[in-house]
Amino acid sequence: MTAPSPGLAERLRLIVITDRALAARWPTILEVVSAALAAGAPAVQLRDKQAGAAELLAIARDLRRLTRRFGALLFVNDRADVALTADADGVHLGTDDLPVAAVRRCVPEGFLIGYSTDDPARARRAVAEGADYLGCGTVYPTGSKVDAGSAIGLEGLDRVAAAVPVPVVAIGGITPGRAPEIASTGAAGLAVVSAVMGAEDPGAAVTALLAPLARRSGIREPVR
Amino acid sequence: MTAPSPGLAERLRLIVITDRALAARWPTILEVVSAALAAGAPAVQLRDKQAGAAELLAIARDLRRLTRRFGALLFVNDRADVALTADADGVHLGTDDLPVAAVRRCVPEGFLIGYSTDDPARARRAVAEGADYLGCGTVYPTGSKVDAGSAIGLEGLDRVAAAVPVPVVAIGGITPGRAPEIASTGAAGLAVVSAVMGAEDPGAAVTALLAPLARRSGIREPVR
Repeated sequence: MTAPSPGLAERLRLIVITDRALAARWPTILEVVSAALAAGAPAVQLRDKQAGAAELLAIARDLRRLTRRFGALLFVNDRADVALTADADGVHLGTDDLPVAAVRRCVPEGFLIGYSTDDPARARRAVAEGADYLGCGTVYPTGSKVDAGSAIGLEGLDRVAAAVPVPVVAIGGITPGRAPEIASTGAAGLAVVSAVMGAEDPGAAVTALLAPLARRSGIREPVR
Repeated sequence: MTAPSPGLAERLRLIVITDRALAARWPTILEVVSAALAAGAPAVQLRDKQAGAAELLAIARDLRRLTRRFGALLFVNDRADVALTADADGVHLGTDDLPVAAVRRCVPEGFLIGYSTDDPARARRAVAEGADYLGCGTVYPTGSKVDAGSAIGLEGLDRVAAAVPVPVVAIGGITPGRAPEIASTGAAGLAVVSAVMGAEDPGAAVTALLAPLARRSGIREPVR
């Protein structure tokens, strides 16, 4: 296990996850991500199951330049090798991806690992194996991820947040209108796909998503 | 650039590349690979574009145990992260995969990188960037790789072999009947998919593929 980065929970208030299809109205995803970063999104996750590694790396490098400019974190979904070669801050792993423990052994100190789970026991195990934060959901039913399973609701989210000492990021069906109730849970932040990628005005969506979290009294940073 | 492993060219006489569909007549690919290793195959490459990373790692770990037992090399196609976490000997990269230079910077000393090209200039560049061996083809027209492009023939193979100081492994449409003419070129060895994965008797296929190479006067090891 690595020590948590200072301010990690604060920097995970909002993770903007890319989606090629939803962003198709823009010339590239860079336009959407730029607008999101300019509006204050503190983290981006590159997710593209269609792209080959060479293409994924090219996009990741563009996103690395953008996120650096705005002081935002960059994660790559699934592919630790792409994350490492793009000099991303970390990788986000799901249950069909490489196990957290296996990746932790192969990456440099300080490289962040996120892991998706809606189960408190799995959450604890992932943290013991070296996960730095958890994505937790699907909180609400959603159409943007076909295999997302059944929604866990705010109670399910709180159960996972209570189980682990690392930041938990809510995911699944989150809209600006629902952000206030997420902010009332133990989650450190939100991760969204369609709420930003599919928005008419991605910057306005980011502003609306962040507002309820900014009004909170301050997120407790994890001590491990 | 890493120093070449002692005997690398000798260990690349034959690379058996896995194929889930072609091996479907067997319970798993492990049965085919076991038979190939028992017959003397010195190297295996795990190639499975359908499997998610977790499944790919599980197969890679099984293949790692098998290849260790027989003293054979194990490569993983495309995914350097799976190769690293499975403790494979290396990764094999194509033009749509991560660039050789990017992977070389992220892997430990001694981790092998193979790169596919049929072009002498690209071959030289890949070696300069840290490739330890090259896959070169398609030598003959083949149905097992849809995007393999047009066949380069023995002359094309020899041009690449002459251009670089590392082992060049011929790939594409190679059968036991064609192995003797590959052995007459500057290639260090052969890589096959269907000739072993689709064989009635994979062990006999390996024996037949290796025979012409064993009769050679000795493969020059690269000096870099």
